[in-house]
Amino acid sequence: MKLGMIGLGRMGANMAQRLVSGGHEVVGFDPRPEARKDLEGRGAESADSLARLVAKLPAPRTLWLMVPSGEITDATLASLRPLLAPGDTVIDGGNSNYRDTQRRAQTFDAEKIHYIDCGTSGGVWGLTGGYSLMIGGGEAPVERLRSIFETLAPAKDQGWGRVGPVGSGHFTKMIHNGIEYGLMQAYAEGFSILQHKSEFGLDLHQVAEIWRYGSVVRSWLLDLTAAALEKNPAMTGIAPFVSDSGEGRWTVAEAIELNVSAPVITLSLLERLRSRDADSFADKLLAAMRNQFGGHAIKST
Amino acid sequence: MKLGMIGLGRMGANMAQRLVSGGHEVVGFDPRPEARKDLEGRGAESADSLARLVAKLPAPRTLWLMVPSGEITDATLASLRPLLAPGDTVIDGGNSNYRDTQRRAQTFDAEKIHYIDCGTSGGVWGLTGGYSLMIGGGEAPVERLRSIFETLAPAKDQGWGRVGPVGSGHFTKMIHNGIEYGLMQAYAEGFSILQHKSEFGLDLHQVAEIWRYGSVVRSWLLDLTAAALEKNPAMTGIAPFVSDSGEGRWTVAEAIELNVSAPVITLSLLERLRSRDADSFADKLLAAMRNQFGGHAIKST
Amino acid sequence: MKLGMIGLGRMGANMAQRLVSGGHEVVGFDPRPEARKDLEGRGAESADSLARLVAKLPAPRTLWLMVPSGEITDATLASLRPLLAPGDTVIDGGNSNYRDTQRRAQTFDAEKIHYIDCGTSGGVWGLTGGYSLMIGGGEAPVERLRSIFETLAPAKDQGWGRVGPVGSGHFTKMIHNGIEYGLMQAYAEGFSILQHKSEFGLDLHQVAEIWRYGSVVRSWLLDLTAAALEKNPAMTGIAPFVSDSGEGRWTVAEAIELNVSAPVITLSLLERLRSRDADSFADKLLAAMRNQFGGHAIKST
Amino acid sequence: MKLGMIGLGRMGANMAQRLVSGGHEVVGFDPRPEARKDLEGRGAESADSLARLVAKLPAPRTLWLMVPSGEITDATLASLRPLLAPGDTVIDGGNSNYRDTQRRAQTFDAEKIHYIDCGTSGGVWGLTGGYSLMIGGGEAPVERLRSIFETLAPAKDQGWGRVGPVGSGHFTKMIHNGIEYGLMQAYAEGFSILQHKSEFGLDLHQVAEIWRYGSVVRSWLLDLTAAALEKNPAMTGIAPFVSDSGEGRWTVAEAIELNVSAPVITLSLLERLRSRDADSFADKLLAAMRNQFGGHAIKST
Repeated sequence: MKLGMIGLGRMGANMAQRLVSGGHEVVGFDPRPEARKDLEGRGAESADSLARLVAKLPAPRTLWLMVPSGEITDATLASLRPLLAPGDTVIDGGNSNYRDTQRRAQTFDAEKIHYIDCGTSGGVWGLTGGYSLMIGGGEAPVERLRSIFETLAPAKDQGWGRVGPVGSGHFTKMIHNGIEYGLMQAYAEGFSILQHKSEFGLDLHQVAEIWRYGSVVRSWLLDLTAAALEKNPAMTGIAPFVSDSGEGRWTVAEAIELNVSAPVITLSLLERLRSRDADSFADKLLAAMRNQFGGHAIKST
Repeated sequence: MKLGMIGLGRMGANMAQRLVSGGHEVVGFDPRPEARKDLEGRGAESADSLARLVAKLPAPRTLWLMVPSGEITDATLASLRPLLAPGDTVIDGGNSNYRDTQRRAQTFDAEKIHYIDCGTSGGVWGLTGGYSLMIGGGEAPVERLRSIFETLAPAKDQGWGRVGPVGSGHFTKMIHNGIEYGLMQAYAEGFSILQHKSEFGLDLHQVAEIWRYGSVVRSWLLDLTAAALEKNPAMTGIAPFVSDSGEGRWTVAEAIELNVSAPVITLSLLERLRSRDADSFADKLLAAMRNQFGGHAIKST
Repeated sequence: MKLGMIGLGRMGANMAQRLVSGGHEVVGFDPRPEARKDLEGRGAESADSLARLVAKLPAPRTLWLMVPSGEITDATLASLRPLLAPGDTVIDGGNSNYRDTQRRAQTFDAEKIHYIDCGTSGGVWGLTGGYSLMIGGGEAPVERLRSIFETLAPAKDQGWGRVGPVGSGHFTKMIHNGIEYGLMQAYAEGFSILQHKSEFGLDLHQVAEIWRYGSVVRSWLLDLTAAALEKNPAMTGIAPFVSDSGEGRWTVAEAIELNVSAPVITLSLLERLRSRDADSFADKLLAAMRNQFGGHAIKST
Repeated sequence: MKLGMIGLGRMGANMAQRLVSGGHEVVGFDPRPEARKDLEGRGAESADSLARLVAKLPAPRTLWLMVPSGEITDATLASLRPLLAPGDTVIDGGNSNYRDTQRRAQTFDAEKIHYIDCGTSGGVWGLTGGYSLMIGGGEAPVERLRSIFETLAPAKDQGWGRVGPVGSGHFTKMIHNGIEYGLMQAYAEGFSILQHKSEFGLDLHQVAEIWRYGSVVRSWLLDLTAAALEKNPAMTGIAPFVSDSGEGRWTVAEAIELNVSAPVITLSLLERLRSRDADSFADKLLAAMRNQFGGHAIKST
């Protein structure tokens, strides 16, 4: 199958390459010439505008977006829509908010263009190992793209599926990321406790390696944790500063809207916020309050 | 009534003074000469050893301990016990763990010495406003000391009471402190959100003052918070470092032992631990894990 | 001063009465005839339509809204706006979301009508004790209404204030309610631990009364808790089901948007959600997972 | 190597069988005749008393305990010690608290008997897949038993290791279980949110299967979750009641003692406590408090 890939960052370029390796044809577009050049080195064609990209695809066309969520996605879709025709299919493979996806799909639906959302997990490892794909959209257009999904996934019949109507793919990916926050925080806390137990002088990398085989907590994230601990067991030079890319926030908001208490996912997000607040006003106020009622000493800055 | 006060720190000296003002006689002991001298300036007698203190009291004797919890309490009690006689009463007014209190009471009980635990709240403000007293011990010895409690409390029949057998006073005080952690953290978080909402340029001291009258959140801790914010609205020079004195930990452990989920009290404690960990290993590991799977940049120290 | 009160529920009727007692004239509107009749019994006039209400007020008019937040507020404002003239003032005293307030204010601003938001705390006790008022809006219109605020507040110069531009009053009230959630949860957890410590047979009402005087945790919410425990010490007949009125959710969302970690306020909200989920899917899945890996028995329904 | 296995429950019997399959000789003891009989069916010998078990082993003897932690372990060790001689080795493979292990090791050390703690993970799946083994104790005795560990582990050089001195094995296993709580809770929350999103009609088993391949959250616990959801997608007949076996509590207590904030592991434990409190006193009190200040309706039981 021939597919247009829009957005040739780390994820888009890798996915294009995996598709080419799987026997598909890919034409890629990115405003950065070096990204287009890199793509050509991976065996795909490139186009230097959306119009030329669309022109290189046979009808019905298949366009896969792999751009940052938010305004860039909206802008790209706005440029793309007038170039397409009824029967074409657009897949948003990025981390869009599922409500944005539902809104965008209506616009395309009005022009009889299929709109599919594909939550994509796997990060930089997906190129060789395949991606986990959570797909939302109509049954027929998803079925038409079956060979694409089979190639991107880890195996033909593993790690991908249509989970429901449009929006459900991004919704499922959002929850996936919420769970990811919780898992990561659980490991981080556990290793932190081990690290603080100086009495035992534990080798954290060794412990991670032991746990990777046969234990209840074995997982891919543990494999990565072991790799990180092998490389830098004392986390030297790394600031205790944890970013978040938005999906954890959406998961927390969604849980509350659905009246679901999700304390672990929620606290995982809050700990990331906390990690970036080295000069907590709340903590300073607490110290001042203790001083007020008990005369307890305040530590000065 | 005549009473011996052991431990003339901020709390013990203030309580002795309040008793004297209320018409009681107090003999105080503290190993530090300057503390004894200070006490005399407050209208009480002093003694320079436990033996001399005991000798100055009429039988049955009443000894009030106001010393740091833990080993000092145990050491003081060990020195005191051989000096006492059946019918005497020892009151531990400090923040002892209630299980220690139960253990100590057995020792005194074996010698027919009454042992009373009195959880004491009020901090530096108790001298003028009176203390809240949560008392555990036998009914008869507590009744015999009624006039002492009536004087220390804010009013004759307010703010004090025998809540149950020995240990129950310290238990109740421990939970009081657990609640205190939760209240303080709730205010600290709320003011922190206000402080971060730069768009409105809120005057936090003004907000605290408004809330002090008529609002649902008015409280003594809010009064103190208002005072702290008046004095130092930006918390200038205060490190975001919050100590804990042990009772929050005990409350968390007790709740878990009783199978009670107490997330707010528990998180209030954890936030204090977190405030003292400016170089969180867990957060560094999280940053390293994100780098492993997504190639996300790590912030360097 | 003469003021129109729109919405004569518990809050609106009580506030009208407090204003009348303070020497103001009030004309009230509510679609329910019985609410208007009740108002007349409190010494105020009534009107049976918004138009007639507006007609009874001297220019520049002052209209106070005390209606449920959300669609009803929007609908009422839409009906009211065409009836007003430049220089009039509308005060929203309800629990509106501050962003709605900012949006509505723009509409009124376009017609030179002043728009003020007044976060109002005090509940059913405000009639006699006065309300805590957090006011957002222009300096001049707030100043013009000074006598109104002085009457509604607990005292002439206590418990009210203009905290900033329009929206800031509702914002401050929102955070007030978030703190309220945290305080309530802290007390509830503490009393629950006391209640589970059957060994001591504590009288929770007695403990609450002791804490009301001199303790660090004394507060108005503790006064209410003591009253609740006096009336029903074992909470007989009360379902463990805690509602929330929306402002806790907004506070949690706002904190996250501002990158402020507020674990205690957040967990207080989650516990309310949890209280309404007697058949937790998450807990059932946890039981099933334990059975899968350890063969641990599952409790059947 | 020939080894005595004490305790032939699910874990002990499976481990004996795995050792036999790996070419070792095992003599097993359990007070229950049917457990001994079952063991014989798995290719091992049995003994009907500790004395006879010890008698069947060549010096230096190797005794592996696989009995419930706590009093039974203490009682078994007390019976066993007089039967042993210097140079023998006792391994506690159960879930003992590491402080108990340190205390017990001192007793055996005094008699020149080696004492090893082996935290064992893998549950009912260890028989075929092998166990993850976290070992504490002296280097020489651990080395002497290398072939035992190599057989029990998933592979000769995977999933086992001496992590430090005696106690460190159980300590590491304790933290492993704390992490396990956090991971399980994160998945449970995520699937619960998916389940509550009725708009998408998601098939939770399908989602779990998709995530098992290529996703960031893939893990052994997810494999088990997928199996549980396949068998019973709606969790029909399962009570929302989650037990805990003690190690989560120990982890929480240890973290606090080490001043490590571990909110996710902690909340995972609290949620289990909460799951067993269908009639929360705290929630009833919250409902009563809301009624007090706002006149909000209480839901009756």
